[in-house]
This record gives sequence, structure tokens and C-alpha cells, in this order.
Amino acid sequence: MGYANADSGLYDNLKLELRRGSLVLAVLAALRTEQYGYTLRGDLAGAGVTIEESALYPMLRRLEGQGLLQSEWRQDDSRRKRFYRITPAGEEILRRLLEEWRQLNESVNRLLQVNPS
Amino acid sequence: MGYANADSGLYDNLKLELRRGSLVLAVLAALRTEQYGYTLRGDLAGAGVTIEESALYPMLRRLEGQGLLQSEWRQDDSRRKRFYRITPAGEEILRRLLEEWRQLNESVNRLLQVNPS
Repeated sequence: MGYANADSGLYDNLKLELRRGSLVLAVLAALRTEQYGYTLRGDLAGAGVTIEESALYPMLRRLEGQGLLQSEWRQDDSRRKRFYRITPAGEEILRRLLEEWRQLNESVNRLLQVNPS
Repeated sequence: MGYANADSGLYDNLKLELRRGSLVLAVLAALRTEQYGYTLRGDLAGAGVTIEESALYPMLRRLEGQGLLQSEWRQDDSRRKRFYRITPAGEEILRRLLEEWRQLNESVNRLLQVNPS
């Protein structure tokens, strides 16, 4: 309300910047369990992460291109579906990013404690 | 170790992406207390957030341009220094970003619980 509404484009950009890095964490973590796009999106939504198909599929392709995911076309319920899962390289990157994420959390919380609103 | 070293540029990029959004949180939170650049950098470092001067000052200018910070030149110890502090609009944005950040945390943690390594 109030101030921020004066420029909600600014807030949206900052929020997007905040989400961008953590979306990779969310997708890699979810794909420790093999899934195809539709169920993956459902799992993410169930955990509170909404992502448009138009954003999810390019991200999956990018992560696969980077060797962090692998995919495979398979028959399921009489349809061919592309199943994704994390690779060992992806698991290693996820582990390191989670460590970084936890440190960032601690840092932000420490700053908030020292500088209460 | 291992896999990730094969392409540490990739990890560095993802880490940067993860840090970028949260740096704004850290800087806005720290500037609930008025500070000049040098002490701000010290406070951030004390909380575990290392940021180069060459990255910090452009960020401060950007956040000031967006109306989230205000600054003022003042005499301190016989030198003129530029003091920064959060604005009411910045406080409002910080509050909303923190809410988003907490939701992202919960989401990532939920996904990790459902999909253990």
C-alpha cells in the first residue's frame, strides 16, 4: 500500500530478481524426483512456487544444456512425455547453491536483527 | 569438487544470480541505520555479505535513483562524507520483498523435504 504502489513496476522488478536465483534451486530440488513438465509445475505450485509454462520450459532446456538436468522421452498413459531429472553435476551445483542460500539467509537475518524496522 | 569444477563459471553465474536479489535486501536492511559507504561495507561484511566497492556504489546510486534510499553530504571527522539511509518508500519495498523472500524460503525447504538428496 501507499509508497510502493506509486511504482509497482519497480517492486515487480526487484521481486523478479529475488525469485530468479531461487527458482533454479526450486526446480533442481524438485527434479531429484523424475517428473515431466506438467507434474513438475504442479509440485512447484504445491510448494508455493508458481511459474508459467512459458518460463518453465526455457529454464528446463537451459538447465539441461548446462548439464544440470537430463531428459528422456517415454511413453506414459499412451502419450509420449519428456521426463526430466537432476544429473550428478546438477546435484553438486544444488548442494553448493543451497549452502550459499543459507549463508545469504543468515546474513539478511543478522542485518534485520541489528537494524529493526 | 568433482563435477562442478568442470564448469565453475556456471556455478559462479548461478551464485551471482542468487546473490543479486538478496543483496538489495541486505543493503536496504543495513540502511535502516544511516551510514556512509565505508561503514556500510563494514557492516555488510560483518554480517557475511562481502561486496566490492565497485559494485556497492553503483547499487547505492541506483537505489537512490529509484527513491528507496536518500543521501546527504555531511562533515564527519573533518571530512565530508555521503551518508545514506532508507526512505519510507524503501522501507515499504523492503517489507514486501522480505515477505516474498520468506515465502521463497519456505517453498525451497518444502521441496527439499519432499525430495531429499
